[in-house]
Amino acid sequence: MAWESSSTAIRAFVHERDWSQFHSPDNLAKSIAIEAGELLECYQWSPGADHADVRRELADVLIYCLLLVDELGADVDELIAAKIQENERKYPADRARGRSAKYDRL
Amino acid sequence: MAWESSSTAIRAFVHERDWSQFHSPDNLAKSIAIEAGELLECYQWSPGADHADVRRELADVLIYCLLLVDELGADVDELIAAKIQENERKYPADRARGRSAKYDRL
Amino acid sequence: MAWESSSTAIRAFVHERDWSQFHSPDNLAKSIAIEAGELLECYQWSPGADHADVRRELADVLIYCLLLVDELGADVDELIAAKIQENERKYPADRARGRSAKYDRL
Amino acid sequence: MAWESSSTAIRAFVHERDWSQFHSPDNLAKSIAIEAGELLECYQWSPGADHADVRRELADVLIYCLLLVDELGADVDELIAAKIQENERKYPADRARGRSAKYDRL
Repeated sequence: MAWESSSTAIRAFVHERDWSQFHSPDNLAKSIAIEAGELLECYQWSPGADHADVRRELADVLIYCLLLVDELGADVDELIAAKIQENERKYPADRARGRSAKYDRL
Repeated sequence: MAWESSSTAIRAFVHERDWSQFHSPDNLAKSIAIEAGELLECYQWSPGADHADVRRELADVLIYCLLLVDELGADVDELIAAKIQENERKYPADRARGRSAKYDRL
Repeated sequence: MAWESSSTAIRAFVHERDWSQFHSPDNLAKSIAIEAGELLECYQWSPGADHADVRRELADVLIYCLLLVDELGADVDELIAAKIQENERKYPADRARGRSAKYDRL
Repeated sequence: MAWESSSTAIRAFVHERDWSQFHSPDNLAKSIAIEAGELLECYQWSPGADHADVRRELADVLIYCLLLVDELGADVDELIAAKIQENERKYPADRARGRSAKYDRL
């Protein structure tokens, strides 16, 4: 499975550096927010961005997300599938179609 | 492949709501940062967090990340593999082992 | 008034560089989030942080906040006073005392 | 002095609730990032935003910033003045004028 290969590569990278000691869930949540800020920096002054920079920063966000998924003993696809089901209830297609309003303002 | 099934489910959810019109790369980068903040909120006052909340917020970050990967016409695993290769150069295992220092301070 | 001197110094710095053209409210909101991520990075792996780094990153957050206050034609103290009043309603001292629970869970 | 009156009001609000026990520097840094994300949410899908919402979220960012300034035993205006001086070195007006490039790319 695709993301399994990514998770395996990330685990190996972390293990070789003995870094799991730093990867408490709250440190990983901080790291995801930090990297999300670096990704946003690619778009700070204009909607156009350097694709190579975006790919690097987006990868950093994903890597920390996969480490937190691991920490939770969760499965990426189950995690996402469950949230999509919740979002389908919060955003009924007929009412949400073409609107960016938040569910509590639909 | 796992990512693929998630990406397919996300695309269907977005298509049913005609939401791709809102998903410019910069709006997705903002959305990733916003959801990363909500994930961090689970750990705002203590390292302990409600796992159900964490899973929901982490899923939101991942969903927007996968939408941006799509927008870039990229592949999640290639994106991550390329960044791990770069990190292996920036953080040689022998010098980085057991240290949380940033590469420019190793 | 103290913050007036800061706002005046910031306006002069921006004017000398003809940077107000970049300071739309949404770009400033992005900038605040980006700098907040850099501030958080000081605490990424431990609660201890380099004070000089923290002061620099905190100043960056404050500078962009003051620029957005300007853009809104608002007054820092009125802005803060109004929010404290709102928070006093949301967090009655007798129920919120010593608890970090969010208002909707008090 | 303006900042002083705001800082005094914030300290009183926190004291009445016995909340300083939660306000470690790292928790305040997390809180600033969380509120910065809520501010950014006002601009998630369009540059137009509800001014009342923006004022509320911006106030939250400022309140946590002032609490961290307090924790550091720092002075807002000195903090900002020192950073502006640093930025004047990093962004010489003649080279930075009208350009949004980062200092290392000027």
